[in-house]
Amino acid sequence: MSFSPSYGKGTCMRRQALAVWTGSFDDGVGTMTTESGVLSNAEYLPRTRFAPGSGTDPDELIAASLGGCFSMALANELELSGFNAKRIETTATATLERLSTGWTMIRMQLDVHASVPNATQGDFVDAALAAKMNCRVARLLNTTISLNASLDS
Amino acid sequence: MSFSPSYGKGTCMRRQALAVWTGSFDDGVGTMTTESGVLSNAEYLPRTRFAPGSGTDPDELIAASLGGCFSMALANELELSGFNAKRIETTATATLERLSTGWTMIRMQLDVHASVPNATQGDFVDAALAAKMNCRVARLLNTTISLNASLDS
Repeated sequence: MSFSPSYGKGTCMRRQALAVWTGSFDDGVGTMTTESGVLSNAEYLPRTRFAPGSGTDPDELIAASLGGCFSMALANELELSGFNAKRIETTATATLERLSTGWTMIRMQLDVHASVPNATQGDFVDAALAAKMNCRVARLLNTTISLNASLDS
Repeated sequence: MSFSPSYGKGTCMRRQALAVWTGSFDDGVGTMTTESGVLSNAEYLPRTRFAPGSGTDPDELIAASLGGCFSMALANELELSGFNAKRIETTATATLERLSTGWTMIRMQLDVHASVPNATQGDFVDAALAAKMNCRVARLLNTTISLNASLDS
């Protein structure tokens, strides 16, 4: 596929992805491709046929997006407070429930632990809360986001 | 990494991803790994250093997630109306602006075209609007989603 140029500088930017569905819902298969090429015809299936090993799905990509954005935002918040993180690990867990409106992401849990020289647990929690508030993906998601933050000793 | 088992059946499910940030914000690098393994230590960098070829980013993953979910939802809506899609292609384009609160996804554009035997343009647009309303990722995102839908002749 060819994407429109979008790596603009300044105050506006675009990011693109292509999804192709082939066949009916019950028997079909989807693929996703992102502008960076990191996803390249990555397969996914409907929920009803989902099983381990059957490809990616929209929900784990949301979890990756939030976890990635949050970890980066936390490195930034720590730096603004005078700390340099050595390593930040965030596991993002999306919980979906089948409601009357269909499958709905009712909660996202962020479990973060990190190695940050000279920071106290208090410093770290303050930075983590600021990162959760400022991270652009957290601001984008219409779901409850909860946070566990612990500093490696 | 090891993920918690989450491929439950029934009315609840979980999806996980791990993000690791190494180093300070300015000089560090992130990686993302999803439960399916489709993303496996996929690299990403802060916005300030972003350039073509420098890995994925949280925003293109949101675009992929929405495009993928929407295309699948559209195959479902068409099937509910008695049509079997042969192929549905959706390009999802996220527009971000730098606001006072930071980079913000202000709009997502879905451009979809499809081959659907026996469907009229009206049938197709009805199904596309229903898919946009019902798709769980569209319901999750706190942004304006606009839609262009055209049926291949």
